[in-house]
Amino acid sequence: MTQRRPMAYSIHRDVLHEADVEEMAQKSESKPSVCENVIQSMRCSGPRLKKCLLRTFPVASWLPRYSIRENALGDFISGISVGIMQLPQGMAYALLAAVPPVFGLYSSFYPVLVYFIFGTSKHISLGTYAVLSVMIGGVTERLAPDSDFMVWDNVTNSSMVDTTVRDAERIKVAAAVTFLSGIFQVIVLGLVQFGFVVTYLSEPLVRGYTTGAAIHVIVSQLKYTFGINPVRHSGPLALIYTVIELCYLLPQTNIGTLVVSIVAIVGLILAKELNSYLGKKLPVPIPVELIAIIVATVISWQVDVEGKYGVDVVGLIPSGLQPPVFPEVSLFGQVIGDAFALSVVGYGIAISLGRIFALKYGYKVDSNQELVALGLSNSFGGIFQCFAISCSMSRTLVQESTGGKTQIAGALSAIVILFITLWIGALFEDLPKAVLAAIIYVNLHGMMKQFLDIPLLWRTNKIDMMVWVVTFILTVLLNPDLGLAAAIGFSMLTVIFRTQLPKYSALGRVPNTDIYRPLENFNQVRNVPGILIFRSSATLYFANAEMFQDALGRKSGIDITKALSAKKKLEAKKKRHEKKMAKDVKKAEKALKMNGVEQKEVAIIEVEAERDPSLLRTIILDLSTVNFLDTVGIKTLRNIQKDYEEIGVEVVLASCQTSVVEHLETGGFFNDKVTKSCLFNSIHDAVLHFSASTLEENRETHF
Amino acid sequence: MTQRRPMAYSIHRDVLHEADVEEMAQKSESKPSVCENVIQSMRCSGPRLKKCLLRTFPVASWLPRYSIRENALGDFISGISVGIMQLPQGMAYALLAAVPPVFGLYSSFYPVLVYFIFGTSKHISLGTYAVLSVMIGGVTERLAPDSDFMVWDNVTNSSMVDTTVRDAERIKVAAAVTFLSGIFQVIVLGLVQFGFVVTYLSEPLVRGYTTGAAIHVIVSQLKYTFGINPVRHSGPLALIYTVIELCYLLPQTNIGTLVVSIVAIVGLILAKELNSYLGKKLPVPIPVELIAIIVATVISWQVDVEGKYGVDVVGLIPSGLQPPVFPEVSLFGQVIGDAFALSVVGYGIAISLGRIFALKYGYKVDSNQELVALGLSNSFGGIFQCFAISCSMSRTLVQESTGGKTQIAGALSAIVILFITLWIGALFEDLPKAVLAAIIYVNLHGMMKQFLDIPLLWRTNKIDMMVWVVTFILTVLLNPDLGLAAAIGFSMLTVIFRTQLPKYSALGRVPNTDIYRPLENFNQVRNVPGILIFRSSATLYFANAEMFQDALGRKSGIDITKALSAKKKLEAKKKRHEKKMAKDVKKAEKALKMNGVEQKEVAIIEVEAERDPSLLRTIILDLSTVNFLDTVGIKTLRNIQKDYEEIGVEVVLASCQTSVVEHLETGGFFNDKVTKSCLFNSIHDAVLHFSASTLEENRETHF
Repeated sequence: MTQRRPMAYSIHRDVLHEADVEEMAQKSESKPSVCENVIQSMRCSGPRLKKCLLRTFPVASWLPRYSIRENALGDFISGISVGIMQLPQGMAYALLAAVPPVFGLYSSFYPVLVYFIFGTSKHISLGTYAVLSVMIGGVTERLAPDSDFMVWDNVTNSSMVDTTVRDAERIKVAAAVTFLSGIFQVIVLGLVQFGFVVTYLSEPLVRGYTTGAAIHVIVSQLKYTFGINPVRHSGPLALIYTVIELCYLLPQTNIGTLVVSIVAIVGLILAKELNSYLGKKLPVPIPVELIAIIVATVISWQVDVEGKYGVDVVGLIPSGLQPPVFPEVSLFGQVIGDAFALSVVGYGIAISLGRIFALKYGYKVDSNQELVALGLSNSFGGIFQCFAISCSMSRTLVQESTGGKTQIAGALSAIVILFITLWIGALFEDLPKAVLAAIIYVNLHGMMKQFLDIPLLWRTNKIDMMVWVVTFILTVLLNPDLGLAAAIGFSMLTVIFRTQLPKYSALGRVPNTDIYRPLENFNQVRNVPGILIFRSSATLYFANAEMFQDALGRKSGIDITKALSAKKKLEAKKKRHEKKMAKDVKKAEKALKMNGVEQKEVAIIEVEAERDPSLLRTIILDLSTVNFLDTVGIKTLRNIQKDYEEIGVEVVLASCQTSVVEHLETGGFFNDKVTKSCLFNSIHDAVLHFSASTLEENRETHF
Repeated sequence: MTQRRPMAYSIHRDVLHEADVEEMAQKSESKPSVCENVIQSMRCSGPRLKKCLLRTFPVASWLPRYSIRENALGDFISGISVGIMQLPQGMAYALLAAVPPVFGLYSSFYPVLVYFIFGTSKHISLGTYAVLSVMIGGVTERLAPDSDFMVWDNVTNSSMVDTTVRDAERIKVAAAVTFLSGIFQVIVLGLVQFGFVVTYLSEPLVRGYTTGAAIHVIVSQLKYTFGINPVRHSGPLALIYTVIELCYLLPQTNIGTLVVSIVAIVGLILAKELNSYLGKKLPVPIPVELIAIIVATVISWQVDVEGKYGVDVVGLIPSGLQPPVFPEVSLFGQVIGDAFALSVVGYGIAISLGRIFALKYGYKVDSNQELVALGLSNSFGGIFQCFAISCSMSRTLVQESTGGKTQIAGALSAIVILFITLWIGALFEDLPKAVLAAIIYVNLHGMMKQFLDIPLLWRTNKIDMMVWVVTFILTVLLNPDLGLAAAIGFSMLTVIFRTQLPKYSALGRVPNTDIYRPLENFNQVRNVPGILIFRSSATLYFANAEMFQDALGRKSGIDITKALSAKKKLEAKKKRHEKKMAKDVKKAEKALKMNGVEQKEVAIIEVEAERDPSLLRTIILDLSTVNFLDTVGIKTLRNIQKDYEEIGVEVVLASCQTSVVEHLETGGFFNDKVTKSCLFNSIHDAVLHFSASTLEENRETHF
């Protein structure tokens, strides 16, 4: 901010009504017709078609202009680094999705390639994402629970789960829900322009939500850490039941698995600390997770932890890729809700991360194109038996910090994954699942940090803190899909709350200025004699219309119902005396409606006995904070005007914005009696207008 | 409005920042602590206790002061008239509730007496109400459907419904849901202060809702008009299924019943017309409905329509009252949702009617006490096997127009009903049910008129029309209980819609004034050179924060991402040339941040090449329409300030209301660099402040 000396402020003009201003400024009426706009937007031409094609295939616009000299090295290093990260993360998140680890590798390959062609963000790293994976896990375990795949084992003489059949079924479910969520992203969010739902994903909501989802992630992985087999729970409160079940099963902990877990977690944390300590000195971060799974696999293979200690390992990893299979349409009906939640969350996360980096590097992310890119990634992925993807914060940061500059980095990481899938993957068959769970925990560290939002929001904005906490609780209790819907509902309700309980203030004048401020907040603000200036801190609409009237009554000190009934009684009395003094009464009545200065009749004094007679003649409603007026709002204003006018108090409006004036017009607020001359340009215009009539009495207080 | 000549407007003062204003006006910080307020409100004393007692039993405060001379005659006539109306309405609405007609009489007696003691409205006529009755009917028919009470009839050799057992069960259900709704009104709405939900029942919503409920009423009575027996449908779309079923059964119409219906409907309509034609000449309206049921009963009894033509008649009416029975608690679980809907609707209708008459006659209706009164009426009624009541518009109008002045009128009407129940009721056993259905149709005439709201709202407020229509459709399709919830949800969403798509305007100055208006709406408004004044028509919050930024970009003509990337490229270029001309570049960078007038360096011109260099130096964000700021809003403002400042455009705020300034403070908007001096009292203050620096160039355009 530059600091200059205050200058003089000098204005000479007439006191202006809305009507005067509209005349002076020549209000225009013509609006471009909707029809013309539509025709304009439908027009088709050669350059337009080319532009449209380039928009749909962004790769065609940037790849030909790719500067090898500038970008190639950074993209190469970044692509390799991210690919190396995708390997352990993909396998670990496959556990979350309750499918065999190799499908995590597929999910890190096909969608990433599709995004390379259609995506517009240069920095985000698409692939498996913890929150989406745990949501997928909820669906797969609900539709293909262990209990459906029990077979009798003749060897141990007990029933056990036929994991091969179960996993095949789960893969089908995951592919179906992923395919459907992709279709939703393209059709519902993209073409039907429903993408605006992500604007409801405000920052406190997203952070509360991801933290809540992280709790689900942790709980779902505890069974691998302790080597136990709890029964799957679903529906609301499933998390609580699962935790209770886990506590119950804790004595059955497999000590070998627990040891592996603890060693892996401690090792990973130490290595990550080292990484961040060395962060600035190394060109590329140490691939901690890759080292962890290599070391763990080697040890596991040498020691034979599976045979000797019963530690659960990854098991068969098929080499090579799988042929595409169209998802089972019969499953769509059962997963439609989950698919929609996945599509919204996936898009919300990707677009917010994309925007952050676009702003940082000064390019534009096309939100509609991103929907198409993500949707195609997911639906294409679904055909190749991937599970739903989005972009992960941790990988994106690595991609950016290692020098990745274009989508080439993402494509390279996919090629690294392809290479691993084809030739190396099978080597990891001995990797203990507990190590993958450890990788997941350590990766959640960023989400756990989000708990620090609570004290921060407590200081800055309590309602946003409420949104955070309620979203978190709803997500934890109701599961991620239902929790998201409930949280969005709640965050919309907060808008109602925020505007439903406004602060009502009587304004006073800052001496010798045209500035009006709330009397209760400022000491050197003076009431304008005979005039009440009333403002609500929020817009006036159906949910607070009644409160507006009540507050006006409190601030004006006029009990409008009492005053009206006093007037009614008076009128009744008058009627009884009518025969006696017909003439006098008529005069009194006339005076009552005129609001003149000299009315001295007993009748008037009786009506005005409710309040200090010299005090209130005019109410100015400052409508500057009003955003729109619904019928209830207009009716409220009209009632206020009618009621107060009946007891001799004039009510005028001030500082309406242009669209509110239009609402007043179409809403039928103005008529023969109420014209635009009761609408003042500013509070000060209105005050000056009414001060003139009482100028004799208190000239000195006004000027 | 008084019309006076415009006066001169004259202001001399310094250009003021928010900080200056706060200093001048001495902003006070002290707020009354929440704790003190609580203690204050908890304090107990003698007068307070008495006041509390009088509040709980309003009868104790007004009955001792009852003026027999003034009120007795009016109350007497009014009480008798309303009592006479309660008889046919009570019996008819009992059909809606699917219970025997005599229970409609009980419902017109017990609750009315309770309201006499606890109620604060002097004019509303409590008793049976069509909308509530049809909601009760939905519950009773769902929980005690005909199919549960089939018995084998040995005479006709076919199965038929055992109506006695069925009706006994339905009465139990009705009593249980009524009792529970009363408890909800006292506890949930009253004590837990949940009564604010009725503020969501905006006028368009209530009118759309009652019209939709009227459709349900009509459809539910068609079976009596045609003398057919459709199967009961429940759940969403039940109305559609019922109508289809009715059409299917139409050939089985009982001609006798249809003739009775048509005669009754035509007769009632004609008599009502006559009534409204003679309206002003008669002191008391002709009790059309009473005459109709008397005539119909006499004819039915003489002709024996039941025996000869198979017309369904009312049947056994037990004389005398029933002993109280506590409702079956086991039913509560099944009716909890319906009970809540009943409690909200019943209260909403009663309080809105009560307020209308309170305002008309200048007394106060205590909304909390009304909840207690209604709740006790319903729960007491539930024990005496009544069904849920509220107040009916038609009876209330009669009560008021026949001179009813206090709750005594209501009490008298209850005594009339008691008299009928004890001695006369049994005489109506031969009354055809088709006549009662006819009475219901004719009474719905007012609700049907509400369809005229649609064209009216189309002209005045399209969003409110949407609320009306959507509420109507939801109520018709989803049944009254679920429909109400969905409609309230929708009407809240409209608030989001209304603020989510604001109109963004660039403001210009009305020449020679301090008035700023949107450039696109006014022809004589002039752009201020070098300054963009930007306003959103709605408050800035999470759902429109992104649009705010986009719109600002459009209006300013600055593609901020492009400008920033241009700046980034420039900086990269500079680094490369650093060795050559280290000194020169440093100067350029310094100049870039200073926003001075004389910066002529090539570097700056490159950055500013994106736009006309002389055009934009300052953006003034007019925040007068902002109601509150959430964390997303504050972040948006901060980002805008940071980004534009980086390309040499200063961003300041103007016209914040006091509470928004507080939100900015607690939200951490201000820091060492951004102080309150970037917050101007008004747009004009800001414009004057920045015009000073360019005064040399364009002095004539500003003053």
